[in-house]
Amino acid sequence: MHRVVIVGAGFAGLSAARALIGKPVEVTVIDQRNFHTFQPMLYEVATAGLDSGDVAYPIRVIFGKAANVAFRFATVTGVDWERRQVTLEDSDPLPFDSVVVASGATARYFGIPGAAEFSFPLYTLTDARRLRDHVLRRLEDADSNPARATEGPLTFVVVGGGPTGVEVAGALAELLDVAVRHDGFGFDRSTGRIILVDGLDRLLTPFKPSAASYAADTLRGRGVELRLGRMVRAVTGDCVELDDGTRIPTETVVWAGGVTVEGTIAAELGTATGSNGRLTVDADLSLVGHDGAYAIGDAAAVPWGPEPAERDRVCPQLAQVAIQSGAHAAAQILNRVAGRPTEPFRYHDKGIMATIGRRAAVTEFPNGLMVRGTLGWLAWLGLHLVYLIGFRNKIVVLINWSWRYLSWSSGPRVIVSDELQAKSPPEGADQG
Amino acid sequence: MHRVVIVGAGFAGLSAARALIGKPVEVTVIDQRNFHTFQPMLYEVATAGLDSGDVAYPIRVIFGKAANVAFRFATVTGVDWERRQVTLEDSDPLPFDSVVVASGATARYFGIPGAAEFSFPLYTLTDARRLRDHVLRRLEDADSNPARATEGPLTFVVVGGGPTGVEVAGALAELLDVAVRHDGFGFDRSTGRIILVDGLDRLLTPFKPSAASYAADTLRGRGVELRLGRMVRAVTGDCVELDDGTRIPTETVVWAGGVTVEGTIAAELGTATGSNGRLTVDADLSLVGHDGAYAIGDAAAVPWGPEPAERDRVCPQLAQVAIQSGAHAAAQILNRVAGRPTEPFRYHDKGIMATIGRRAAVTEFPNGLMVRGTLGWLAWLGLHLVYLIGFRNKIVVLINWSWRYLSWSSGPRVIVSDELQAKSPPEGADQG
Repeated sequence: MHRVVIVGAGFAGLSAARALIGKPVEVTVIDQRNFHTFQPMLYEVATAGLDSGDVAYPIRVIFGKAANVAFRFATVTGVDWERRQVTLEDSDPLPFDSVVVASGATARYFGIPGAAEFSFPLYTLTDARRLRDHVLRRLEDADSNPARATEGPLTFVVVGGGPTGVEVAGALAELLDVAVRHDGFGFDRSTGRIILVDGLDRLLTPFKPSAASYAADTLRGRGVELRLGRMVRAVTGDCVELDDGTRIPTETVVWAGGVTVEGTIAAELGTATGSNGRLTVDADLSLVGHDGAYAIGDAAAVPWGPEPAERDRVCPQLAQVAIQSGAHAAAQILNRVAGRPTEPFRYHDKGIMATIGRRAAVTEFPNGLMVRGTLGWLAWLGLHLVYLIGFRNKIVVLINWSWRYLSWSSGPRVIVSDELQAKSPPEGADQG
Repeated sequence: MHRVVIVGAGFAGLSAARALIGKPVEVTVIDQRNFHTFQPMLYEVATAGLDSGDVAYPIRVIFGKAANVAFRFATVTGVDWERRQVTLEDSDPLPFDSVVVASGATARYFGIPGAAEFSFPLYTLTDARRLRDHVLRRLEDADSNPARATEGPLTFVVVGGGPTGVEVAGALAELLDVAVRHDGFGFDRSTGRIILVDGLDRLLTPFKPSAASYAADTLRGRGVELRLGRMVRAVTGDCVELDDGTRIPTETVVWAGGVTVEGTIAAELGTATGSNGRLTVDADLSLVGHDGAYAIGDAAAVPWGPEPAERDRVCPQLAQVAIQSGAHAAAQILNRVAGRPTEPFRYHDKGIMATIGRRAAVTEFPNGLMVRGTLGWLAWLGLHLVYLIGFRNKIVVLINWSWRYLSWSSGPRVIVSDELQAKSPPEGADQG
């Protein structure tokens, strides 16, 4: 049986694996986490709107009944192209006939001093929980030490004006509102500041200018300060410095300034890499220079389509691209197994969405139609519920959303992870 | 205004604080966590049946609208009886007119070598999550290394045959069933062993013998091995040793062997302590030797009632005792503020419950009536839903239970905490 190894169980890897269920191939999905993360809602975990389990789904449950798909909980250390096997940390290498690289990306800091060290990225569930715990601790700190409240604990700086930055800034504003209105914190709402910084002079670059100004107006109306056309020069533990010399005292810098493949396992595969370290692929998504290897999702420079003009246009690092490229790679593996020629990938743009908060989101369709406000927000909620994996999760998230909407109260504002860090597991007992 | 400081927001502390809402006192509830933990369902978090957020409720949300109750997120270091103030780590002491000690208990290891170091207690949410992650990693380990599967990763030893031990053992058996049936693990169910050890020759000591044998039969029927009348002599990272010399290779020892107040802040208050370090209190729950101080819940040796025979009978460390003693202490504070004499505490026994798993639980009422099987299980579920704090949590837990019951699938089997331990927060950025 033709052996397929899929590295990574994000949107791309899952999509590929699902397309291979019941097909004449033997699939192993490898991930260093035992769960799939629904990344579009990570910002809700980070701002205490949803619980971790709502956006995480055990990978084994997805493939538990698929006889030809196995899951392997392991960290990939590389690909041995000569022996055609994926090498793993702490266990034997996995041989393959076809390999699919879907290892995603990581936060990109552009070499800005202190950014990697002191800011909070938002790409993994761990990132989200770390940020949530940190933010909640800042609120408690401001409550316990009123004299210090204006010095930084209540100032939250978000770097990056793309969808993630806009979403986090909007959600932080709501979290502060709820904290003051419902949670009995002793500080005044006006001492809480949320500052969104972006080097460009507008928000939501892939969207039309009218969507950008809608987002900007909405955020400003909710008390978010915008510092557009400003680059971050440095981040420290108690301040962020902009390129105009402004120093903003803050203990919380959320990094939504973009992602890169550099530093991830994909970058170490020894194949051609394009912008941001993304793996260069052929029109059929096969990895340039390697037979029977594919790269998909955030890890790959996925071409928009096979025509010359489209080939140079790289798809954005979005869930839709990951899902479509994953299914396409799977189909090409099956084509080759059946002795058929492979087909080129073509991206079907379904539009882009960003939510700014309660009853405010913007959806832009490829035909130019734009939906915003309450309708855009409902569309955002509905679409994300559809794509969220697991019926139970869908119901629970729907209840959480309705609950928060009706009661104006936020979700699981519990601080747990720092405590976990302080207590290490029994030594010797956890040699996984 | 009379200042009341309540140390701890478990069942006892919360019950006391709630009874003081809107009364002519100024209350501060202090806890080292920002959430209340619903301890009776911790075992469900530990066995991946419920998510952390389902059994944790932010304390601020409970008192957010109570004008006279404030929450303080801090670690108590002691009580300065002379100056009448509670001393805190990292912030100024809190003065009080009345103080309520509700600091709970901690796992009791009886000095057994290696027990504190290598076993997993189950008293806090962190304990539960740590155990869940550890157990799930063991399953993955057995799957990745089939040769090692029989050597320990799939052997789970539970120490203690009380309600917690019985609940954990039953839930672990279900987790293994689900793992093999639904999650595509490669090992055979029969390689998984769950061993329950207790020094006494029966389970569930506070219950009648017939309840104990029902629990024993049910557990055996679900594949749990019972080692009754056996003491644990030592625990290491890869084995547990019993007093008859048996060595059981295992990487997971769950410690449900009892609790103690020794080692907690209550033990350092310099007042009289009774068995297990529990604080000695008068009939009205006031702390012996200190004016205007009360001890309640697990931290106190709560007398059953004021009659001579009852005074020597100390209440068990149960949620009901905590709730009732908390309300009583609050009432006595109000009595004294109003210049009225205090009244003695009297425990209203509502019965005891233990669940063994799916459609199996036992409830024993004070009049001797016993309900077990499916009816006992439904009673357990219903009662715990009633006591669970937060309407949203009740709904979500109900959905989770129904879901698991109908689909025979388990809950949030995601491994997150060890990853958190590996990544420390940005230094300097998290000086809470």
